[in-house]
Formats: sequence, C-alpha cells, structure tokens
Amino acid sequence: MTFSLKFLTSFKNWLLGLFNKSWLLSAFPQKKKTQLKLPAPYPETDENLPKQYQNHPCPNYMDLKMRFRDVGRMNAIIEALGRDFLTAMPEGAYKSRLGQISFLARRMHEDLAAQDVASLIERAHTHERKCPSDWDEWDSANLHEMEVMYRHHCKVSPDLMEKRAHLSYEGRRRHRDVLKTNDWNAAQGFLQEMIDLQRTIAESKCLRDNNHKTEAPYQALMREYMPGARLEEIDKLFGDFKEKLDHLLPRVLEQQKQQAEPIEIEGPFPADLQLNLNKSLLKVLGFDFNRGGLYETGHNPVEGGTPDDTRLVIKTSNTANFLNSLKSALHEGGHGLYIQGLPRDQWRYQPVGQDLGAAVQESQALLIDMIIGRMPEFFNYLSPRVEGLFQRLGDEAFSAQNLYNTKTRVQAGLLRREADEITYFYHVNMRQSLERDLIAGRLAVKDLPDAWNAEVKKFTGKEPTNYAEGCLQDVHWFVGKFGYFPSYSLGHMMAAQIFKAMKRDIQNIPELIQAGNFKPVLDWLGTNIHSKGRMFRTQALLEDVTGSRLSATPLINHLEDRYLAAA
Amino acid sequence: MTFSLKFLTSFKNWLLGLFNKSWLLSAFPQKKKTQLKLPAPYPETDENLPKQYQNHPCPNYMDLKMRFRDVGRMNAIIEALGRDFLTAMPEGAYKSRLGQISFLARRMHEDLAAQDVASLIERAHTHERKCPSDWDEWDSANLHEMEVMYRHHCKVSPDLMEKRAHLSYEGRRRHRDVLKTNDWNAAQGFLQEMIDLQRTIAESKCLRDNNHKTEAPYQALMREYMPGARLEEIDKLFGDFKEKLDHLLPRVLEQQKQQAEPIEIEGPFPADLQLNLNKSLLKVLGFDFNRGGLYETGHNPVEGGTPDDTRLVIKTSNTANFLNSLKSALHEGGHGLYIQGLPRDQWRYQPVGQDLGAAVQESQALLIDMIIGRMPEFFNYLSPRVEGLFQRLGDEAFSAQNLYNTKTRVQAGLLRREADEITYFYHVNMRQSLERDLIAGRLAVKDLPDAWNAEVKKFTGKEPTNYAEGCLQDVHWFVGKFGYFPSYSLGHMMAAQIFKAMKRDIQNIPELIQAGNFKPVLDWLGTNIHSKGRMFRTQALLEDVTGSRLSATPLINHLEDRYLAAA
Repeated sequence: MTFSLKFLTSFKNWLLGLFNKSWLLSAFPQKKKTQLKLPAPYPETDENLPKQYQNHPCPNYMDLKMRFRDVGRMNAIIEALGRDFLTAMPEGAYKSRLGQISFLARRMHEDLAAQDVASLIERAHTHERKCPSDWDEWDSANLHEMEVMYRHHCKVSPDLMEKRAHLSYEGRRRHRDVLKTNDWNAAQGFLQEMIDLQRTIAESKCLRDNNHKTEAPYQALMREYMPGARLEEIDKLFGDFKEKLDHLLPRVLEQQKQQAEPIEIEGPFPADLQLNLNKSLLKVLGFDFNRGGLYETGHNPVEGGTPDDTRLVIKTSNTANFLNSLKSALHEGGHGLYIQGLPRDQWRYQPVGQDLGAAVQESQALLIDMIIGRMPEFFNYLSPRVEGLFQRLGDEAFSAQNLYNTKTRVQAGLLRREADEITYFYHVNMRQSLERDLIAGRLAVKDLPDAWNAEVKKFTGKEPTNYAEGCLQDVHWFVGKFGYFPSYSLGHMMAAQIFKAMKRDIQNIPELIQAGNFKPVLDWLGTNIHSKGRMFRTQALLEDVTGSRLSATPLINHLEDRYLAAA
Repeated sequence: MTFSLKFLTSFKNWLLGLFNKSWLLSAFPQKKKTQLKLPAPYPETDENLPKQYQNHPCPNYMDLKMRFRDVGRMNAIIEALGRDFLTAMPEGAYKSRLGQISFLARRMHEDLAAQDVASLIERAHTHERKCPSDWDEWDSANLHEMEVMYRHHCKVSPDLMEKRAHLSYEGRRRHRDVLKTNDWNAAQGFLQEMIDLQRTIAESKCLRDNNHKTEAPYQALMREYMPGARLEEIDKLFGDFKEKLDHLLPRVLEQQKQQAEPIEIEGPFPADLQLNLNKSLLKVLGFDFNRGGLYETGHNPVEGGTPDDTRLVIKTSNTANFLNSLKSALHEGGHGLYIQGLPRDQWRYQPVGQDLGAAVQESQALLIDMIIGRMPEFFNYLSPRVEGLFQRLGDEAFSAQNLYNTKTRVQAGLLRREADEITYFYHVNMRQSLERDLIAGRLAVKDLPDAWNAEVKKFTGKEPTNYAEGCLQDVHWFVGKFGYFPSYSLGHMMAAQIFKAMKRDIQNIPELIQAGNFKPVLDWLGTNIHSKGRMFRTQALLEDVTGSRLSATPLINHLEDRYLAAA
C-alpha cells in the first residue's frame, strides 16, 4: 500500500488540525472562581459612596449608570488624547493618533446607541413613574440626560461618527497649517468634505423633525451644542438684540470721538512672561492647577477637558501684544473654572455631571473675559502687576486708565477674537448666518470668501487682505462645529443676566476685584451654576438663579452702562 | 361613574408610557443609506496598501487583522495615556486616569479573549493548511502571534486584567512616593496586593500546564515578557554563566588593583544641561525626534511607547552626576530605537509588527548602554563634547581615558541601575531568585527586606541603610513585572552575541563610533532585528542573524576582552 505525498501531507494537516482544535477549545476561558476578592460591578449600597455608585432600587438605571460611566471614561480618554495632541504629542504621531481617537469615538457611539440602551431607558422611566419616591431630582435629571444623549446618537451611523471624530482632529491641524500658508484651495477641499459630513449627520438626526424643513438640519447640529434650542427663538432674540445694538453703536462711537485715543502699548512681550502672567491670573481667579494647567499651543485654542484634567490651551506666540493672550487665558479660564466646578465627586462621567453645553459654557467664559475682565477695577488690579512684570514702571501706557481705555475701545475690526464687546455680536451673527447657508446648501463653499468679505465689509467698512483675517480665521468650521457660533452671543446675554444676579447677592464686587479677591465671585458661580451640572436645563437654571428666562435686556443695560454712562 | 385620583394617575402614566415607548422604538437607528461615500471596513485589494489592510483570500484572517488592529489601537492609546501620566498629567487627574487606563485594558482584553476569536483563528489555520500558497511568511507569523496573544488572555478573567492595569499604574506612583518616604509598611501592603494578584493571574494561565508544579506560575508570568521561555533552560544558562563569572570576577578585581582609581567627576551638572546632552546623543544615535522624545519624569523610567509615538522617560534630577542620566538615556534610547524601527508602515498594530518581548528589548537597550556606550571610542567621542557643554576644558576628570575608567570600574554596589557590566548579573540573578520565591509563596513579603539584605551582602559585602537602596530600588515589582528580571541578563547575552555578528559585517565599528557616526550600526540593527518585528521568534532570529541559538559565550568573551585584555 502506498500513499502519495499529497495524501500524507493532508493527513498530517488533518492531524494538526485536530490538535489545534482541541487546544483551542481547551483554551476557552474557564469559569474558575478566583481566590482574589474583586470589587463587585458596583459596590453595595452605602450612603458614603458617590451617587454614581450608590445602589438604586431600579436595576435598569443602575446598569445605565455603569454604561454611561464607561461612555464618560471614553470621552475623558478622548479629551486627554486631544489635549496631548494640542500640546505635547510628537508631530509624527499625527496620523495614527487620528485613527486612535476616531476609533474610540466610534466605540463610544456604539456603546451609547446600542439597542438595549433604549429598552433600559424605557424600563427605568417605567420604574420612575411607578416609584417616584425612589428617584431624587438628580437621578431623574440623570435619566433624562441619558435619554437626550441616546437620542443624539441613535440615528447616526457608527461610520459617520468615526469619520466625524477623524475630520474634527484633522481639522485642527489643517487649520493651523492654512493659517500659515493662506492656501484657500487646500482649505476649500477640506471644508467641503466637512460640510458634506455635517449635513449628512444632521439629516440623519432630523429625519422625523420636518417642521422646519430647510433649517431643520442646522437646528439639529445646533442642538448638540445647545440641547433643545429652537431656531425661531434664537432668530427672535438675535433680531431684537441687533435692532437695539444698531441703535446703541452709533451713540457709543459718537461719544467715543470726544475721548482721546488710548496710548499704544508697545512690545515686545516675551512669550514666557506672557504665559507666566496668564497662569498667575488664572491662579488668582481660583483655577486649580492641581487638576489642570495652561499650555501654549501652535493651534487655535479649543475649549475642553474634564473636571479632573482641565488643560487649557492658548496661543502666546504674538509677542507684540500681551493683551490678546491675556484675553484668551481669561476666556479659556472661564471655561476651565466651569469645568472644574462640575459635580465630579458625586457624578463624574454621568450625563447629569456634565456642563450644560456651549451657550452656558460661553456665558462662563465671557463673564470672566468680557464682563469682569474689562471692569475698571480689574485694570486697577492688573496695572501695577504688569508694570512690574514687563519692567515698565511709570509707563503711562500701563496705567489702569489706559488699559481700560484700550480694552473698551469700540471699533469694528476684521478679527472676531480681538473684537470689542459691542461689535462682537456682528461677528457672531454673520458667522451663524453664513453657516446656515452652507449647511442648507444656499451658499457653496467656493463662494464663501466673497460672501464673507461682503458681509464683514457691511459692519467694518474693511475687507480682509488674506484668508487668515477673513473666512479662515476661526477654527470652528474646521473642527466641524457648525451650529456653535450662536452660543457666543447667547452666552454673552446669559453672562450679563447672571452677573446682574450676582451683584444682587454680592454688593462689593468692584472692591473685591480691585483687591484681586475673586473667591466670592467664584464661590457664587460654583454654588449657583457650576456645581449644578445638568440638574436643571438651561432656561430652568436661569430662572432659578436670575428669576427669569434668557433675555437680552441685561446685556443691553450692561453695554449702555459701560459704554455710554462713562461719558 | 367616578374614578379615584389614584386610578387617573396610573392611567395617565400608562398613556405616557405608551408615548415613551413609541418614541423610543421610533428612535432606533434607521438603516438609511447615507449619501456620503464612506470607506469600506477595509479597502479593496491593492498592492500599494500596507499589509495590514491588504485583502487576504481568507476572510477569517481578514477579520482577525481588523480586530487586532483595534486591539493594537487600544494598546497604543494606553501607551499614550501612560506617557502622559509620567510626564505631563496634572497630579489631581491621578485617580480618574487609573480608572480610564484600567477600563480600556479591560476592553482590550475582552476584545482579545472573545470566544469567536478562537474560532476565527481556527478557521484561519485551516485555510493556511489548505491553501499554503496564500500565506506568506509574514501572514503566517502574524496568525501565529495572534494565537499566542489569545492564549495569554483567554484564561484570565476581565476583572483580573482590569485590576492588573489599575495596580500597575498605581504602582508607578506608589514607587515614586515610597522612594521619598522610605515607608516600608506602605510598600509592603501594596506589594502584597500585587503579588496576590499576579499569582492569581499566573494560576489562571497555567491551569493546564502541570509539568513543573511549583514554578509553573512563575514561568507563566515570565512568558508574557519572553514568549515560550522555559525556566529549565534559563536556569541552566544562568547557572553556567554564574560559574564562569565567579571565576572571572576575582581575576578582574585583582588586575584592577594594579590600576589607579579614576578621578572623581564632580558636579553640579544642571538638569537642563543633562537633558540637552542626552537628547543630543539620542539624535546622534539616530533616534527620530519627530516620532518621539526624551522627557524628565519624577518616576523611575519604564520603557514603552509605540513606533509612532516613542516618548522615553528618564530621571535627570541627580545634579551631582551626569553619567547616571546619560546611562539611562542610552538604555531607554536603545529600547526606543528598537520600537521606532519596527515594521510600522506595513504592520502597525498587528501582532507581527510588535517587538519580540523583554529579552530582545533589553538586548537592544544593553547593546547601546553597556556594550557600545562603554567602548573607549565612545568616550573619545563624548569627552570633548561634555568638556564643552559643562565648561570644563582641560579638566582631567573629563578625559576620554578617565570617563572610560570610571564607567568600566568593576565594583559591586547596592544599586542595580548603577552596576558595572560584570556585577550586573548578580543583581539580576538575585532578583529573579527572590521573585520566584515570592510568587511560589516560599518567601513572605514581610521577610523581603531581610532576605534582600542577606542576598546583596553575599556579593557586595555591604548592607543597604534604607529601602530605597535596598529592596525598593526597582520599580518592576510595583508595576507587576514579575518574571521580567531574567530578561536583563538574557538580553545582555544576546547583545554580546548580536554585537559579535555586527562586527563580522561592519569591520570599522570603533572608528565609526569615535567619529559619532552611528548610522551603519543603526542600519544594521534595523535591517537584522528591528524591522523583523515578530516575523521570527527569538531563537530563530538569533540563528538567522548570528548563526546560533542564544549562548552565554559571546558575553563571557566580551567581558574577558574588555576587563582582562586591557591589562
């Protein structure tokens, strides 16, 4: 009897196959009881545990808490990777980092949009209705926010979410680069891709919301930054506000003519001294450097971070002017104080422990940057210190009065980031109008520069001479933030409204600021806003804290007080 | 007909329930075709694609490639978070970062140990046997390494893996702290917890490997660092080597007596200058700073990183002596050059694209640090440059001869990290013996300091006066690296064997080193070792490159040449 070589080989392979098979089966995880005591998925009921881990009579809600904790962890990891991306990552890690971030964003989305999340939420709601006494206001709000997050994700495909994360981080880098190269063609291709993606996502989200056909996709995008926001309401608010501003602005400019021009503040101001100043100011404001920091980035700043790790990024590369990086630090610092003040001990990672979205975020940033950071008393505090730091003792340009005059000078310019407190609105309004056109398809990307230049000329009388001071100046569209811009002006309004309430509760704010004592202000914000997380929705929070829903009146009053009464 | 209030309320709730239900159902993801063109899960066959993405006739293997890509991404994310942890993370983020890393480690493990991975591997093996011509040597090696990784994970529970990651990062911080506080009690409790965990993991792994009952758990741990290593072989190798060293050492010491003591090199050497020197040297060695960097850490160095992001960490805090941080930089640099040289373009994230484990890692580190970095010609290159950097022109202590004498002085001391090339082995041998006793339960943690001190006295004649120069000096046990120590001496042997082969291929190595031209050396390592990834297993690689399996003879010859022939 003979066997061909081929047969022998297959026989050998068959034997090997058996061997492998039996090995693989034997290698399946054994359900052996380990001797080590391991923590239960969540610890037993204990009043001293953070609310995130406290047992709840509804097991479905308990499951949801653990799932959302993991979602929150993934989000925190993405934030940490993103901060690293902006501040420390080696340049050569760029491409693989994009893959890592977008992979994790996809995983996070898949966890969030899993089908059984819907039934868990539904069953938890049933429990809430049947046993309302088992649900305190935080748990109820948390469950509600879980539902909101689920709704934001459930209709969008994982592929789209992965691509969105990828393009968003790619966009940061591309924006940094086009600011240097001024290459519109490079920008245009990327923006087109980003807008197509955003529109597709928006359309997935608003399939069932056909009330406002043309603008529904834009509204869907906007709601990611301002949950529940209605375009009609914003249009009304912005329309009224613009009317009042159109009336106010010429009066301010007329009055300003009577005053001398501020003395120009001349540099150079070394970048390291600027960073030192900005860090010191944030420390004085109460920012906790044990849980965060302030870093220079080559990119445009993007707010973010988590309560445990709030790394703020700004640019200090402009040595001709220290006031710009200072403004940026105060602005990001306002975001950072909000983030650090969230209810992390009890609700870290849970939806209810997060901030209320972009409008409230911007209210906290602009309250510090524009409202408090431009008070005369703030400059009384700042002036002697910058005189010392930059070795300009006796320099009139560094007097409190001149710093104040410089920062409250009203003059429409080409750059949003350097805009005064009044013309800032026109920048924001123009951008939201353009991005609505882009998303609705009324404006082609190729026509953006012309449209931009025409719009900006209307209120500045000037035209950009390059893209970096024109339609490419902001990072937002590059990182996919369509629908974000309105939150700046909404936040500004909120900031004025909140500040009014704060002044009611703290009578001597000017004296405190002048003495560099920001603690009462931060404590007030902490108690009334930051520590609330998402326990209230935005309008309810405003009603609770200020006694009324969002209104533009306090901002108009503030602007009149500061820019007209000073005459 | 009347209804009680209670009935009305439940009716209302029932109605609301219906409403919620229908909303939730309608909110299920829609399988709508998006208009956007998205990339396929993996791109179509294309010769120009990296091998990771190239289509393969076996769909199960293709699936495995995508799964292991994601596992690799998770690993790379953990590495990035870990580098951040060691260099930049705010202190207050510590606890939540531990949670994030261990959560991700759990997820990675769950992906790896999923039951269908076993069947995918099995089916891919079947395909490999049936259609061997479809499998090139890289694909076959990749599949084999997938199996090895699966085996390492499949028997261990997710809870254990999560806890392991948690304790391992907690251990880095705890080690940093106990070095300062010298608090044995704090260390003991933690080490006990870590050893219990490691033993439990080891026992899960070796359930079916009862050949060597007492030592099987230790061997299982060791194999994570040196896949396939056999304890018997290592015992034999170490036993023979020790015998030869016991004979060599007294001869070296006897001869050394005839020579003058090296002139002491006195500091201070500012930390920033040390870091500058170390970075410059790594650059000269060929380390790519575009894909990595060298950072100061308050912790003990732990090697790591990925080919795209190789951030090395060392301590430069000792200003009295620049040679220690330089040694550390050369050592970590050797690891870094290996990592950066892995086949990332073709096999990024795939098992076959990874390094060969701790022993080969250490061979690359010790080749740079101990073998090349202590050649007389290296000091000829270094001497004038450090004279310049530290402004010591004409200082005899900085002469090449004195630097060489200093770094080749043989004298058994208490610290492994500062040990000379000969007594280094005794440090390693003693540690592996102690950790075997710890894992096997023959030595209680509470008795470790006494056991350590007794052992170290045998070959140094000295006893530690504190734990930091005694049993707490190394970070390894704190990060759970039980079974790692043998790889130092195995790596040292490999390094000598590899260097011998390199000298066969490159005749003028001393001249090249003296001229600071490391390119031919790095190119040789890149071609013969680094770029091979895991295409060969360790012994096969050694046979391929050096013509024989691992042997201690080249190292003995090297030590005789350097420490006896110089007489």
